[in-house]
Amino acid sequence: MNIKNTLVPVSGFLVSGVHAGLKRKRNDVGIIYSELPAVAAAAFTKNIVKAAPVVLDMDYIKNESTRAIVINSGNANAATGTKGMNDAIAMTKQVADHFGLDQREVLVSSTGVIGQTLAMDKVESGITDALNNLNKHDYEALSESILTTDTFPKHASVTVELSDGLVTLTGIAKGSGMIHPNMGTMLGFVMTDCNISKPLLQELLLDTVEDTYNMVSVDGDTSTNDTIIVIANGASNHTKIESKNADYEIMKQAVYGINETLAKLIAQDGEGATKLVECTVTGARSIKDAKLLSKSIITSSLVKTALFGNDANWGRILCAMGYSEGTFEPEQIDITFRSQTEAIDIVKQGIALEFSEDKATEILSGKEVWLDVDCHDGSETATAWGCDLSYDYVKINGSYRS
Amino acid sequence: MNIKNTLVPVSGFLVSGVHAGLKRKRNDVGIIYSELPAVAAAAFTKNIVKAAPVVLDMDYIKNESTRAIVINSGNANAATGTKGMNDAIAMTKQVADHFGLDQREVLVSSTGVIGQTLAMDKVESGITDALNNLNKHDYEALSESILTTDTFPKHASVTVELSDGLVTLTGIAKGSGMIHPNMGTMLGFVMTDCNISKPLLQELLLDTVEDTYNMVSVDGDTSTNDTIIVIANGASNHTKIESKNADYEIMKQAVYGINETLAKLIAQDGEGATKLVECTVTGARSIKDAKLLSKSIITSSLVKTALFGNDANWGRILCAMGYSEGTFEPEQIDITFRSQTEAIDIVKQGIALEFSEDKATEILSGKEVWLDVDCHDGSETATAWGCDLSYDYVKINGSYRS
Repeated sequence: MNIKNTLVPVSGFLVSGVHAGLKRKRNDVGIIYSELPAVAAAAFTKNIVKAAPVVLDMDYIKNESTRAIVINSGNANAATGTKGMNDAIAMTKQVADHFGLDQREVLVSSTGVIGQTLAMDKVESGITDALNNLNKHDYEALSESILTTDTFPKHASVTVELSDGLVTLTGIAKGSGMIHPNMGTMLGFVMTDCNISKPLLQELLLDTVEDTYNMVSVDGDTSTNDTIIVIANGASNHTKIESKNADYEIMKQAVYGINETLAKLIAQDGEGATKLVECTVTGARSIKDAKLLSKSIITSSLVKTALFGNDANWGRILCAMGYSEGTFEPEQIDITFRSQTEAIDIVKQGIALEFSEDKATEILSGKEVWLDVDCHDGSETATAWGCDLSYDYVKINGSYRS
Repeated sequence: MNIKNTLVPVSGFLVSGVHAGLKRKRNDVGIIYSELPAVAAAAFTKNIVKAAPVVLDMDYIKNESTRAIVINSGNANAATGTKGMNDAIAMTKQVADHFGLDQREVLVSSTGVIGQTLAMDKVESGITDALNNLNKHDYEALSESILTTDTFPKHASVTVELSDGLVTLTGIAKGSGMIHPNMGTMLGFVMTDCNISKPLLQELLLDTVEDTYNMVSVDGDTSTNDTIIVIANGASNHTKIESKNADYEIMKQAVYGINETLAKLIAQDGEGATKLVECTVTGARSIKDAKLLSKSIITSSLVKTALFGNDANWGRILCAMGYSEGTFEPEQIDITFRSQTEAIDIVKQGIALEFSEDKATEILSGKEVWLDVDCHDGSETATAWGCDLSYDYVKINGSYRS
């Protein structure tokens, strides 16, 4: 599947992103609007402290029709009490009124600092501005409007061929701190012109989230606002997907591909990250074990600092596996470090090999590092994505609120 | 109970610490020896990757008599296969042979880098040296010999009065990375002249570990080597404790006090730490909830970096509670920050108060910071200890092996 790191416009959608003054410079209010009837599916944070927009969306997503999503960055509207909920409702109402929609057809997402109420005068004029700027092509402005400490916008597009028509998917996402399995502090929005029933879209989304967004960790903190929404408007004239047929499987692969790409971009752009780390555990007794092990490795602060230092400190990998609650036999473990072009075996059957420290350091110095762990204890596999832990992570988060 | 940060010699024990060349400068081999018959109790890491000395001790601790403990730092003897186990056995044998003891009367602990085998020539001559240097007073040399990246030795002493005699306890411990509930990468050794049955000593130890060492986190990584051993030789001439009588309760309080003091010293000296953080959760529905919530707060990288930056970013505290798997009502939460002399209410019923940022920053700038969280949801309480996450944590762990 040819996932591209570009922003291909999707038929039937209007988008915009504007600067409302919630952040210093970058766009901070965005809108996605479908000109056609559309359905949406969503997954939300499992943190029991849920931001107001998340609580609202968990209700509104039950509505059969979803036509628009309004997003702000710079403020998470979390832990903001009754005012926060009223503000989230006001955001959906402003958009709904503009298009003559039911309020429940509009979803809302917020991201940024927790515990401060929204400056609603700025938000309101920002939404007005965004509504007036809606157009068919400016996905870049939209993509920028959802960022917080991200150093680059994250997007992915793909076009797939169903049995009787082409379907396009374009997704945008933001990281980049408070990122941990069970949805990071991430927002992700995928637009598609696919024609698919709402229940199937929901099932398909949840199936893919488990192996993509939920396998990313930047810092072990699961946020209050994580949301991923897929909105499908059927603008492509193919036969509607109403059962788990071949077209459903193709769409599932497409959504998986978009989500995996966005998840990896989030890991790559983790706060202060200097490299993307992909950890694949093979030969595990169960998928659950493989996931626990790979997630524990990429989440360990000690593994992450060693990777920042380009230090082949594999003992920390074994140690992180040991407290993961995943099952494995320590004396069966093989560990290999890989770059794009090279590989080096570090551990065989739980014992260190005589490896070249220089070559290991060279491999670990790359922008992308693969850690391969073979448990020789079964046939299941899982991959998790993360990043290193650098001075800049501390810098960014020691002074985030200001 | 008057726990002192000093090293009071305990009757009937000989100790020593020497430099064997496993570390660059500081002492790295230590021995504790009881001239009298003694019993020991121990708790070990729950990491399924256990270092060779831990595996050996888990067997040897079943022996009724324990007379000596031999310790090395600079190398954890973990993930070292058959050679590692043979080395651990050789260490106990050398000490046992010297005193004409059964091998199973000698326990062994190691701490340091994982995955490298011990330089046994150095270890062996270090043990010889340590055996020749045993004396009744040099607890400082012993205390130094167990340190790794610790910036200061950790010790505590207390004397308590039982129904018919005084008993002294002196404990030493080391941190300071790979520290997380389920025993950090810590070693702790408590010597006492108490006369107590082995099963009661074991029960008493486990009771206190749960609320002390297991409530400390530096970096969320549970190590392969964590061990705490209490050795009691009955040199004090009081009536032997053979039931859970009043003397048992006094001893339990004393062991608790020593362990709590050592646990807090470990948190205070967490790698790169600039401050000790004590988080107490009150009003929780259950003790389990109180523990999950307080541990999650002190473990969160985002809370820890905010504390490093003296930033009253309470939203991260609420967020860390939200993903802790502990139960609470977000809209019932009160949060107060405290220093030795001042306090400031930050959150009331889940909503931010209008607090003075300057005063909050002043309180957070201290060497000790207290985070008080009231759940108003029950009557249970728990306290956890941690530290902030600084540039130096990254520095220390980005280059630890070298």
